[in-house]
Amino acid sequence: MKVIVLFSGGKDSALASILLEPFFDVELATFAFGRHDTDKAAKEAAKVLNLPHRTIVFEDEVLEEALGMLLDTGYPRDGLNRLHRHALDVLSRDWEFVADGTKREDRVPMMTPDGVRSLEDRQKVHYIRPLAGYGSKTINALAFRYMDFETLPSEVRPASDFEVGLRLALEERCGQEAVFRIFPANHMHTRVVRRKSV
Amino acid sequence: MKVIVLFSGGKDSALASILLEPFFDVELATFAFGRHDTDKAAKEAAKVLNLPHRTIVFEDEVLEEALGMLLDTGYPRDGLNRLHRHALDVLSRDWEFVADGTKREDRVPMMTPDGVRSLEDRQKVHYIRPLAGYGSKTINALAFRYMDFETLPSEVRPASDFEVGLRLALEERCGQEAVFRIFPANHMHTRVVRRKSV
Repeated sequence: MKVIVLFSGGKDSALASILLEPFFDVELATFAFGRHDTDKAAKEAAKVLNLPHRTIVFEDEVLEEALGMLLDTGYPRDGLNRLHRHALDVLSRDWEFVADGTKREDRVPMMTPDGVRSLEDRQKVHYIRPLAGYGSKTINALAFRYMDFETLPSEVRPASDFEVGLRLALEERCGQEAVFRIFPANHMHTRVVRRKSV
Repeated sequence: MKVIVLFSGGKDSALASILLEPFFDVELATFAFGRHDTDKAAKEAAKVLNLPHRTIVFEDEVLEEALGMLLDTGYPRDGLNRLHRHALDVLSRDWEFVADGTKREDRVPMMTPDGVRSLEDRQKVHYIRPLAGYGSKTINALAFRYMDFETLPSEVRPASDFEVGLRLALEERCGQEAVFRIFPANHMHTRVVRRKSV
């Protein structure tokens, strides 16, 4: 059975992939915005994990809609959730099993229970969250066991998650001030740099 | 790393154990009430899975408290949750990683988010729910792949879960009428009968 995992290059989506690997043929998918190479970090991390990887480019309208939500609401939550839901929808068209690295304590991006049911029923897909039953402490213990990773601020684009891509697009469009206004300061991301053999 | 999995002999706790097996040394634990051999189904299923198993006997006061909750409330939810929480507490005394087979759609037994935080903080334990991010449809697809199981009604004591034990104790104490009044009719349980090599 094949599963496609929404992959940022960070430790959570990497660990989700590692947990699925004994049971599925795992492929990684990273979403990028047309004009940027925000998938670079994920591509390198996928190589480190030795897992096949593909980049999927968001349609321009999706980026526009997410940016509109950022500017309307003044915070990133709705825009990030919109991108996450859209990415899962796109993957569900071609895969029967779709997974991501969202974890027990995550709040954004996160599907509501109704959203999950709707995704699975509409798309006839199995949506899997391998880390949903793991707390951050447990995830860190496992991540340290299976990989080396760095922790870096959003500004240096360490990972290929939606936040890094949206920040970049927002900065181009509205300047750094808008990024500072809408996104939390000092947000950190992880990036996998080595897979440990256990 | 060792993990102890709360095990009923049914497909959910069996699948939870199988998902953990590549990453942990898995041991299974079944709770029983003193005067009955309700752990028999789980013991046999553990043998089928080829995983080490132990039975832990609930203290009499725990059974009394749970029976009192059944009779007070007229439904099984609070009593089942009490047993589940107590079982996790007991396991947390001796293990650093404790898991169970509760899944995304389960309602009872289930820890609240506050209950999970409290358990992990009080006991310095990692509580893992490997199936928390899997829907029933996905769990069935995986379960069929890795095991054969039967589905049988509570009355024949097919599994060693809390409901089977509580029904038996309640019947002895208050008669079958109390069981019919408090527990749902036609409740089905699964029992693992064979592990498939994949």
